[in-house]
Amino acid sequence: MVDILHKVGVKAAPEAVYEALTARQGLAGWWTNDTQGDGDVVEGVVKFRFDAGGFDMVVLDLVPGKRVLWQVVDGPEEWIGTQISWDLERDGDYTEVLFKHVGWQEPVDFMHHCSTKWAVYLMSLKQLVETGRGAPSPHDVKIDSWD
Amino acid sequence: MVDILHKVGVKAAPEAVYEALTARQGLAGWWTNDTQGDGDVVEGVVKFRFDAGGFDMVVLDLVPGKRVLWQVVDGPEEWIGTQISWDLERDGDYTEVLFKHVGWQEPVDFMHHCSTKWAVYLMSLKQLVETGRGAPSPHDVKIDSWD
Repeated sequence: MVDILHKVGVKAAPEAVYEALTARQGLAGWWTNDTQGDGDVVEGVVKFRFDAGGFDMVVLDLVPGKRVLWQVVDGPEEWIGTQISWDLERDGDYTEVLFKHVGWQEPVDFMHHCSTKWAVYLMSLKQLVETGRGAPSPHDVKIDSWD
Repeated sequence: MVDILHKVGVKAAPEAVYEALTARQGLAGWWTNDTQGDGDVVEGVVKFRFDAGGFDMVVLDLVPGKRVLWQVVDGPEEWIGTQISWDLERDGDYTEVLFKHVGWQEPVDFMHHCSTKWAVYLMSLKQLVETGRGAPSPHDVKIDSWD
């Protein structure tokens, strides 16, 4: 079993990053404009939609300014049941964001694609919090023929 | 043991991507300007240098237009002995690049950082081949306090 792991540093307070990971407007500002639901309460469901489909996440854990944990409950077969965690830690002027997307059954080509695309969206999150403007779908950076 | 996996699609022929992964000028155009050595022969050694240090790779396998395999022989302790493979496959107008960096002993924070940074450099590779201009070190996109 393999995991997708990433790390970015955002020049902002942990609370600002946490807001971008839990508020509907925050999530819509870096991942996809078409975001609905409740990311700011445990057991809340958030629906993220893209041109090619989408994901429904249930919020499993929230520690303000420190941690967000989602489980995928609907979406592509390879994603269902996987978990996505965000751990935030202040490091000087930065908030270091440790990202994990775990529970993949096989390291299929789609997983390779998602790994790279997550990095692109993490850079969008960083830009949103630092500058007020991210690059969420449908304005996201395209990486391959799958989008 | 966990691996770093990525995928990008480059709108170009496999031969053009292969050139960017094997010719000194190609490698210097997307990863780091300070690239020395022989990436175009099996058993060749390539020395990649950055502000904060660098990596020496030995070329283990080359299949023109299809595959490149490196092993890290010098650099940060976590990298030594790890292998980096590039598999190229034509898909319509694209060359799909499957990237793997395998052999990490532990999923340390540095591995999270390297995963995201590889994605950034893969986008630089894509830009170089598609437009003639990548973003190699020291002009690379910065992702966190580690660079």
